[in-house]
Amino acid sequence: MEQLQKLQQKIELGLSSLAVSDHPATLYEPITYFMRIGGKRIRPILTLLSAELFSNCDDTVLNQAMAIELFHNFSLIHDDIMDDAPLRRGVLTVHEKWGLSQGILSGDVLLVVAYQYLVKAQPKYLGRLMDVFNKMAVEVCEGQQLDMDFEKRNDVQIEEYINMIRLKTSVLLGCALQLGAIVSDASENDTKHIYNFGVQIGIAFQIQDDILDVYADAEKFGKRVGGDIHSNKKTFLYLKARERANQEQLSIFDHQLNNTNASEKVEIIRGLYDALQIRQLAINEMNKFYDLAMESLKSIEVPQENKALLIAVADYLISRDV
Amino acid sequence: MEQLQKLQQKIELGLSSLAVSDHPATLYEPITYFMRIGGKRIRPILTLLSAELFSNCDDTVLNQAMAIELFHNFSLIHDDIMDDAPLRRGVLTVHEKWGLSQGILSGDVLLVVAYQYLVKAQPKYLGRLMDVFNKMAVEVCEGQQLDMDFEKRNDVQIEEYINMIRLKTSVLLGCALQLGAIVSDASENDTKHIYNFGVQIGIAFQIQDDILDVYADAEKFGKRVGGDIHSNKKTFLYLKARERANQEQLSIFDHQLNNTNASEKVEIIRGLYDALQIRQLAINEMNKFYDLAMESLKSIEVPQENKALLIAVADYLISRDV
Repeated sequence: MEQLQKLQQKIELGLSSLAVSDHPATLYEPITYFMRIGGKRIRPILTLLSAELFSNCDDTVLNQAMAIELFHNFSLIHDDIMDDAPLRRGVLTVHEKWGLSQGILSGDVLLVVAYQYLVKAQPKYLGRLMDVFNKMAVEVCEGQQLDMDFEKRNDVQIEEYINMIRLKTSVLLGCALQLGAIVSDASENDTKHIYNFGVQIGIAFQIQDDILDVYADAEKFGKRVGGDIHSNKKTFLYLKARERANQEQLSIFDHQLNNTNASEKVEIIRGLYDALQIRQLAINEMNKFYDLAMESLKSIEVPQENKALLIAVADYLISRDV
Repeated sequence: MEQLQKLQQKIELGLSSLAVSDHPATLYEPITYFMRIGGKRIRPILTLLSAELFSNCDDTVLNQAMAIELFHNFSLIHDDIMDDAPLRRGVLTVHEKWGLSQGILSGDVLLVVAYQYLVKAQPKYLGRLMDVFNKMAVEVCEGQQLDMDFEKRNDVQIEEYINMIRLKTSVLLGCALQLGAIVSDASENDTKHIYNFGVQIGIAFQIQDDILDVYADAEKFGKRVGGDIHSNKKTFLYLKARERANQEQLSIFDHQLNNTNASEKVEIIRGLYDALQIRQLAINEMNKFYDLAMESLKSIEVPQENKALLIAVADYLISRDV
């Protein structure tokens, strides 16, 4: 969509002239490198869209949008270390290219730079901007920790899983929208609604991610279909299947967890999912959160027609088939 | 000193009721553990002393003092990973006790918590508090990166070294004092002077640290004397010695860099230092920065007698023989 592309270009322009020093290069090169890997800049676009929704024509909101994108990239750099990931979007991760120490340290300084952009705002907004951003940042760390904890647990409940993805990925979307609302003098209620919209769409998005990992079209997907199954990742589908499986199915499931023949394992577990109608249940769950998000959006007291772009982004997030 | 002990207790009390969640415990346990390892809490004490100097009787400055101590501990947790240090003050470091991921993540969340405390202040101060804290945080990361870079370089100049320790350790002391000045409505000039006092005392302190590593009384020192020599660390003494050494002395020095007999290596290099009067030159350099610090302090427009405690802390920092 043309309007969204324009916003994306605005973000890219901001990022291309990122106000960081260049010395020592060993600290700042990894940041420039990583910020250029790209991505769709959905989160900062949400900040700009939220500001537009509340009739903010002030370009300083680009600073808060940048803060969101910088924070997101800080967390990716550190998560890549924790997940021992060699690649991100097809290129080497920071710790893989420069080593562990530079991965940690360039992530750290990126977080600080995010705060520098966050507070480029009118003084009257600083307190609330900091409060919501800090809360989000703490929650994202909690979500990442829970995700790691879940790897070692065999009793994870679906509600715990939903809470984990809320913290790890969704509150960042909520916060992105919230920042735009704050610097646009949106009412308390509207700010709450737009935050909820972001969090709920974020959860729907993550469930869609879980579905795609198992059922995506291999050619369009760009990474190996079934990766979550292969690594025994406790996704919504995994947990739902184990919740609904009978004794016999559970024993097949358990047996597959150690199967080293990846394609056979994916085929058998997908067969179990099919027998248990897990795909449909996951779609239902995704739609539940999508509907909640639309209700939250509807509650915001601005003309409904002004919400079209936000709905377009929401639809894009949960309907992508790649 | 009784007054300083009182301030230390105030800090400990604040830290003991740190406003962090307890879930997930895997994220917050390392923080509680690390904050209890202790230390003399010099940095937050400086914040409180600075506020007192500028007649601030408002107890909310404890929040900014806490922010400084939390930031300091965040940087220690991450530095311990980068330095691959198994112990800190005689107990296991976070990454050693809980693993790399928890080391990174609990450090991250501690940095965010530091920001949460920093902005517990009157709204009118937020902009300046954030500006000076962010600047300091970026510089500390730059200093740590330079320190790591220097390990791989053989052409480090003394001015570069002084700049590195300024960034890595001294600006934090300067910032600690600055925060206290800001929330006490100190003048621009006085805020600048107290910052400079902190930075200059910090550099003197670090040079003293370099001296102690070579010349401390082994019984009092608590860690192995000569550790820097053993690890070929490019301290002020190392760099000054190489700057002054003649060809023959340089060749002895070079030869020792690979000597695996630690006590012999320390003895021979200390012998070189003695021949080149490096200890005295280092003391001169330390005194130069101490004198600059005293000049900065003198420039602050409050009655000289009110500065006694700050001078006592400064003297303590550079005269400790353990």
